[in-house]
Amino acid sequence: MINVTVWNENRHEQKNPVVREIYPEGIHGAIASFLEEGGFRTHTATLDEVEHGLTEEVLNQTDVLVWWGHLAHDEVKDDIVEKVKQRVLDGMGLIVLHSGHFSKIFKTLMGTSCDLKWREADEKERLWVVEPSHPIVEGIGEFIELEREEMYGEHFDIPAPDELIFTSWFEGGEIFRSGCTYKRGNGKVFYFRPGHETYPTYHNKDIQRVIMNAIKWAKPAERKRPVYGNAQPLESIAVKN
Amino acid sequence: MINVTVWNENRHEQKNPVVREIYPEGIHGAIASFLEEGGFRTHTATLDEVEHGLTEEVLNQTDVLVWWGHLAHDEVKDDIVEKVKQRVLDGMGLIVLHSGHFSKIFKTLMGTSCDLKWREADEKERLWVVEPSHPIVEGIGEFIELEREEMYGEHFDIPAPDELIFTSWFEGGEIFRSGCTYKRGNGKVFYFRPGHETYPTYHNKDIQRVIMNAIKWAKPAERKRPVYGNAQPLESIAVKN
Amino acid sequence: MINVTVWNENRHEQKNPVVREIYPEGIHGAIASFLEEGGFRTHTATLDEVEHGLTEEVLNQTDVLVWWGHLAHDEVKDDIVEKVKQRVLDGMGLIVLHSGHFSKIFKTLMGTSCDLKWREADEKERLWVVEPSHPIVEGIGEFIELEREEMYGEHFDIPAPDELIFTSWFEGGEIFRSGCTYKRGNGKVFYFRPGHETYPTYHNKDIQRVIMNAIKWAKPAERKRPVYGNAQPLESIAVKN
Amino acid sequence: MINVTVWNENRHEQKNPVVREIYPEGIHGAIASFLEEGGFRTHTATLDEVEHGLTEEVLNQTDVLVWWGHLAHDEVKDDIVEKVKQRVLDGMGLIVLHSGHFSKIFKTLMGTSCDLKWREADEKERLWVVEPSHPIVEGIGEFIELEREEMYGEHFDIPAPDELIFTSWFEGGEIFRSGCTYKRGNGKVFYFRPGHETYPTYHNKDIQRVIMNAIKWAKPAERKRPVYGNAQPLESIAVKN
Repeated sequence: MINVTVWNENRHEQKNPVVREIYPEGIHGAIASFLEEGGFRTHTATLDEVEHGLTEEVLNQTDVLVWWGHLAHDEVKDDIVEKVKQRVLDGMGLIVLHSGHFSKIFKTLMGTSCDLKWREADEKERLWVVEPSHPIVEGIGEFIELEREEMYGEHFDIPAPDELIFTSWFEGGEIFRSGCTYKRGNGKVFYFRPGHETYPTYHNKDIQRVIMNAIKWAKPAERKRPVYGNAQPLESIAVKN
Repeated sequence: MINVTVWNENRHEQKNPVVREIYPEGIHGAIASFLEEGGFRTHTATLDEVEHGLTEEVLNQTDVLVWWGHLAHDEVKDDIVEKVKQRVLDGMGLIVLHSGHFSKIFKTLMGTSCDLKWREADEKERLWVVEPSHPIVEGIGEFIELEREEMYGEHFDIPAPDELIFTSWFEGGEIFRSGCTYKRGNGKVFYFRPGHETYPTYHNKDIQRVIMNAIKWAKPAERKRPVYGNAQPLESIAVKN
Repeated sequence: MINVTVWNENRHEQKNPVVREIYPEGIHGAIASFLEEGGFRTHTATLDEVEHGLTEEVLNQTDVLVWWGHLAHDEVKDDIVEKVKQRVLDGMGLIVLHSGHFSKIFKTLMGTSCDLKWREADEKERLWVVEPSHPIVEGIGEFIELEREEMYGEHFDIPAPDELIFTSWFEGGEIFRSGCTYKRGNGKVFYFRPGHETYPTYHNKDIQRVIMNAIKWAKPAERKRPVYGNAQPLESIAVKN
Repeated sequence: MINVTVWNENRHEQKNPVVREIYPEGIHGAIASFLEEGGFRTHTATLDEVEHGLTEEVLNQTDVLVWWGHLAHDEVKDDIVEKVKQRVLDGMGLIVLHSGHFSKIFKTLMGTSCDLKWREADEKERLWVVEPSHPIVEGIGEFIELEREEMYGEHFDIPAPDELIFTSWFEGGEIFRSGCTYKRGNGKVFYFRPGHETYPTYHNKDIQRVIMNAIKWAKPAERKRPVYGNAQPLESIAVKN
């Protein structure tokens, strides 16, 4: 069984009744709920908890971390970000959702600004599958259609993804690389665009399916970690020298 | 349960007592044997069977096809190659071993000559893992060492792999991209270098583990295949026109 | 100076007065014309010439080949396709335009069906730049807008490009990976989507600029070709054996 | 003409007579010298200069920055690193040499630890070309042989390179991805392994050629930078909303 920790900033939910109505248990609660039904062992953590809820103990029991943040990226402490980064490099999977593109953890793993275009105009989004053989799109049709979403547009300032899984079409004239995989150290990272807080995106069955598929894909490989530093040569050269 | 068909040219085994001693049941038999133990449902097929053993019925029950060939690539009929290619594009996984780099099926899926350097000199090979997070290297250490193998050297004329998993070191001065993944259509392809017929390579537990991992990775994604051709637009533009 | 051969099927121009009006000198003539102005040494070749105009002599003087075809892919002779493929693997650049996605030369270099969705509905196309640092987009803004074009939509059955340069947005709801680079052997390949015969796309200055940039990018690297086959080891191992 | 700034830590040269003998003008001096001969406009900068020699004025006149560091990565000030990173994202090319794998600028652009194995044992290194069509290997044979170098071995903890150009073979049993390209924002990055301070590696003509080729490849693309933030839609949707 895969252990998932769903991290949410959990601020919009406190301030905006629209968001609270869509996600009465918070975005983290909504995500954790469908994950539990999907057979994952699920834990939640939020910004205002001690150590943002990401204690050593919690991370020790996390195979894959899901991340949603927006208003308060700057409030996430640098030492927690560093700790999470080390976990990813050591093998923990990381699923970064929507406005998490600007989170410290995503930016430090990417090495770029992760900037983009955006617009709130109740636009239709179609996420087209461009990599049909990938386990992340199992059970998904040719595209996922969301009647209304926030627009994110290119240029999206990320490194070219290892695998481009989805590209989004928006009514207003933009496209966006909306499902991107990366490997970093021993860990796997998936960025998945949809999920603006004022739309019921995480109640969509296809979106839920993609997140569950991504978690399965991102779980750590079971093997010893590489060893670094000063190394011994083959015997033959050792003798020579 | 994953259905695997192990295809082997099965000619060296008929001609060379050294090969027959190492692989009394043939290379296909040896591979099928450890796959069965590993929990796969296994079938074998060889060049001299009717339709090279790759009938419609066999292919219908194949999730992943393993391919070993060397002496008789030219004897594989073009229509069978075409049939296998269509299966891969439709989702069947394909694991191409060693001298299969020059098989018609691999060359037609790659689009390049797939040529390389080689030497038979009983050299030590070390397959170094360069992608530590990949499911294909689960349970594998930092490298796999084979005391003696045929050398394959760069330049290996393949498209840059989607993922480079292993790179080999050889005693005589060469390196080789020895574990390479590709996606083609709905199918996944893994090329894995080791396995010259005069060495007991497929009895090596690490080599067996990699092949089993690769089969799990290459199994078809469960989803409907994309539709091609003339397409309908969104309603709004349909009305406009 | 770079030697470019522009190959065109040149059939629509014979049959359709609309096409003839837009391209009185043929699509090949229009492309050759702006290339000449851009400082390239240009030659044209068409389907109905002897050897489709791609004789040994012509290919010997071609650094980069531009390819436009649509109605008559099947009439291109297999031996000519094979000859062109060998040239690409040996270093000749290849720029495949629009409906050339279904040409024999592109399909054999890709290894996939190269199929796609399409629609003729006078739709607006926006080609968004997703790789801003690439020499192919020098002098190009954030997107190229074409007022009316044929739609091509995903899934586009190609191998994941080495570099994804452009992705198109279409009015009717589709997206398309419309600028893709590949390396094959010693050669470089660029697929560029726009250019349906009934629109004046190749008169567009941005489209011309991309094609010229792509030719510069695709010109052969000046170096000796790799050697394949049986190889000598380092002296030390030679002695040992 | 391309403006190159060669940055060097310049500490080994102060402490170690062996290094001073090989590079009497410092590593930066040696590199600048062959670049000048190669037709580049060259400037040098070192750690102990004000702002490490990387003032606004210097960076304003730098198309491509070459980086060599080893002993004193930690002494490079974070604000200078941040400034250089912004330049790269804005288009400046960056060539990172040898022990620069552990520099702050490389690590922050990669997002990983950039750790590796190493050994000082006077080993032969062969850098094999695995991407024969790339402009970085123009004029280079199938491999570059260095009689004696420090060994760097896998696992090298970097993101999978956009393009893998060289892979090194070492006498003692290791391989290493020794020539790697990356794009970050509008900038291009090339990591090139050779160049331990106690060997005359930067006097090698092939090594010089690769560095010069890489600088040409890495020069900024001439185009306007992407715009980020709140974006206007197409007129049609603007009207609708």
